[in-house]
Amino acid sequence: MERRSGLDTDRVETLADGVFAIAMTLLVFAISVPELSGSALDRLPMSLLNLWPKLLAYVLSFVVLGVFWIGHHNQFFYIRRASRTFLWINILFLMFVAFIPFSAQLLGRYPGQRVAVILYGLNMIVVGLSLYLVWWYATSSHRLVDPDLNRATIGIATRRILSGPVAYAFAIVVSLLSVPAALVIIALVPLLYILPARIDRVLSGVRRS
Amino acid sequence: MERRSGLDTDRVETLADGVFAIAMTLLVFAISVPELSGSALDRLPMSLLNLWPKLLAYVLSFVVLGVFWIGHHNQFFYIRRASRTFLWINILFLMFVAFIPFSAQLLGRYPGQRVAVILYGLNMIVVGLSLYLVWWYATSSHRLVDPDLNRATIGIATRRILSGPVAYAFAIVVSLLSVPAALVIIALVPLLYILPARIDRVLSGVRRS
Amino acid sequence: MERRSGLDTDRVETLADGVFAIAMTLLVFAISVPELSGSALDRLPMSLLNLWPKLLAYVLSFVVLGVFWIGHHNQFFYIRRASRTFLWINILFLMFVAFIPFSAQLLGRYPGQRVAVILYGLNMIVVGLSLYLVWWYATSSHRLVDPDLNRATIGIATRRILSGPVAYAFAIVVSLLSVPAALVIIALVPLLYILPARIDRVLSGVRRS
Amino acid sequence: MERRSGLDTDRVETLADGVFAIAMTLLVFAISVPELSGSALDRLPMSLLNLWPKLLAYVLSFVVLGVFWIGHHNQFFYIRRASRTFLWINILFLMFVAFIPFSAQLLGRYPGQRVAVILYGLNMIVVGLSLYLVWWYATSSHRLVDPDLNRATIGIATRRILSGPVAYAFAIVVSLLSVPAALVIIALVPLLYILPARIDRVLSGVRRS
Repeated sequence: MERRSGLDTDRVETLADGVFAIAMTLLVFAISVPELSGSALDRLPMSLLNLWPKLLAYVLSFVVLGVFWIGHHNQFFYIRRASRTFLWINILFLMFVAFIPFSAQLLGRYPGQRVAVILYGLNMIVVGLSLYLVWWYATSSHRLVDPDLNRATIGIATRRILSGPVAYAFAIVVSLLSVPAALVIIALVPLLYILPARIDRVLSGVRRS
Repeated sequence: MERRSGLDTDRVETLADGVFAIAMTLLVFAISVPELSGSALDRLPMSLLNLWPKLLAYVLSFVVLGVFWIGHHNQFFYIRRASRTFLWINILFLMFVAFIPFSAQLLGRYPGQRVAVILYGLNMIVVGLSLYLVWWYATSSHRLVDPDLNRATIGIATRRILSGPVAYAFAIVVSLLSVPAALVIIALVPLLYILPARIDRVLSGVRRS
Repeated sequence: MERRSGLDTDRVETLADGVFAIAMTLLVFAISVPELSGSALDRLPMSLLNLWPKLLAYVLSFVVLGVFWIGHHNQFFYIRRASRTFLWINILFLMFVAFIPFSAQLLGRYPGQRVAVILYGLNMIVVGLSLYLVWWYATSSHRLVDPDLNRATIGIATRRILSGPVAYAFAIVVSLLSVPAALVIIALVPLLYILPARIDRVLSGVRRS
Repeated sequence: MERRSGLDTDRVETLADGVFAIAMTLLVFAISVPELSGSALDRLPMSLLNLWPKLLAYVLSFVVLGVFWIGHHNQFFYIRRASRTFLWINILFLMFVAFIPFSAQLLGRYPGQRVAVILYGLNMIVVGLSLYLVWWYATSSHRLVDPDLNRATIGIATRRILSGPVAYAFAIVVSLLSVPAALVIIALVPLLYILPARIDRVLSGVRRS
């Protein structure tokens, strides 16, 4: 293996993958096995069915973590170098990512409460904005990317990253009028990122050239 | 180290290894150290012996996670590229894998309850089917594998992957008649995958050529 | 991939990244979702606001773990080999690092208690000193680094590493007079390491040459 | 990066490093921050001092995990290939390793109870024997190692690995006569492995040639 530079991107990616893997795997621990005994055992199927809001929160949070993991992953396709400032921006991003299990558990416990929706939305906004910061810092003046990375690609990625925080801000505004409507928006935002999009044509084009 | 493509398979494998390592290591936390004091301390050996169903659930779950980890590992021997859709199929797989600690704890807590057996079986079926989806997506039209990977190898792997969900579906049907018989099947399924098989001759043949 | 030597630095780095990723991600589990129901639900926003000291402890601990991760990361830019003794020094360092979630939780729970401030400071001192030991062992007589690594660079890194333990020792002394003043120092120490510094000019100079 | 074989050793090492990192980092969660309030706050220093047996268990377990991690790490210096059986032997080893946090917590909670000492010793014996199995399987008939690996090196490593289980078996026998004497042996065994030894001369000799 080649000697790596002390400020390369390898260990940032390892740290990020670790944080994402742990946050994803620990989500299930928010769902407790019901404690029943004796004649109450008959109610076990019903107790399990009643876990559905927590199950939904599990799926939603797993998918959201997947969205941000793929976003981070795709950025590092273009990023060639690191610097102390860049490492710290990534740690800031991971600090907000590692907070998602709390926000998700809050939303799963109190789906009808406006404050839970707002906090969840704010968490997503700061994750999205710090992911944008990673991208902005790396690409402005082509600081940490190849000099020939074209502006159009940078722009497509930027718009894609920023559409998340905008959608979550919209969900927060909607929550002031209707909490259920805001929940629907929150459940739909990840679809923006799951469906194949323009960025994929750019990524695969680069790969094939 | 070579520059990696943004949509290569490296980080998927790192994420998967992380999720598996964490799920495996956290299984032990379902077994609590008994809390005794004073004269009750004499009962410590008996309290520890009474942990045996949880110990069995620990061993079974560790082995099942091992089966799926090796299955995923072997698939990536053939897979050369990734795409957004492929990353999402993997995240779906990991979402079902990360749920295993819950199903295993449920089965360890209520081994005699039909609903626990069925949920455990369903969890295994969706893990198996999503692992099949990873393989199907990668190999159909040789989308993400080498063009010269022969159809026979793809077929052997496919049948091997699908035999798990079929066996667990059978266990669920059996549980409608007899829960203990279903438990025996559930305990035996991993053996299907542990014993050396035809796929290993294929894998080692490729390695030596 | 090249065959790696049994005593190379790769797996130490993987182990360290794992320990840091887990310690960082588990910090959020010190913050529990408040349990309210019925009319008490109105107090949810207030209950969440009352979590602010735990939130501060989360941010501070995440940043401190980031400081030590970057410090360890940068050292391994220069380190070429490993030995049994070196592996054990690293395990000692990780043993103190993995203790940070406890000290941070203690400080978050009892910010006004002198003993919490002193224990937190002592934890940071032993982490810093063991990180220094990693560096000292690797660089003395150029044991595990390149023979041409110049003494000035070694000295700059040494002074940088040791300034942390000195600052925390100062915070402990101050805590004997005033706990709040000691808390301010503890909150400010990480800034010493976040701001770009002389060591970065050395690191980037090496990278470009 | 070179294409890896589906049955290479890379991902086994990643999985093992993950399991060790998680087991190590989670040890600290066996030590709870004392819950005191009001005038009881004066007893905080004393409550913290009373945590010393748990602190000792933390240090001992971290060191023991370090011993086994280094042992596994060093074996993979010589191992070139993998096979399904080999992967399963490693998963068996990791299953026993992931159980150490339970045994360690049991011993930390009941240091005076014979059954705790015996269970801890048995856990260490099965970890050691499965590590020996990894080595035996890889080296017998030079199955997974280079053909020119000499028998003397294999023998030195074998004796080194087996000395652990022998020492723990001795501790179990001693515990039948005196639990405190057995505890002393258990605390001293890791030193066998920490001190530089004959195996290191072999490892460094190989590295330099």
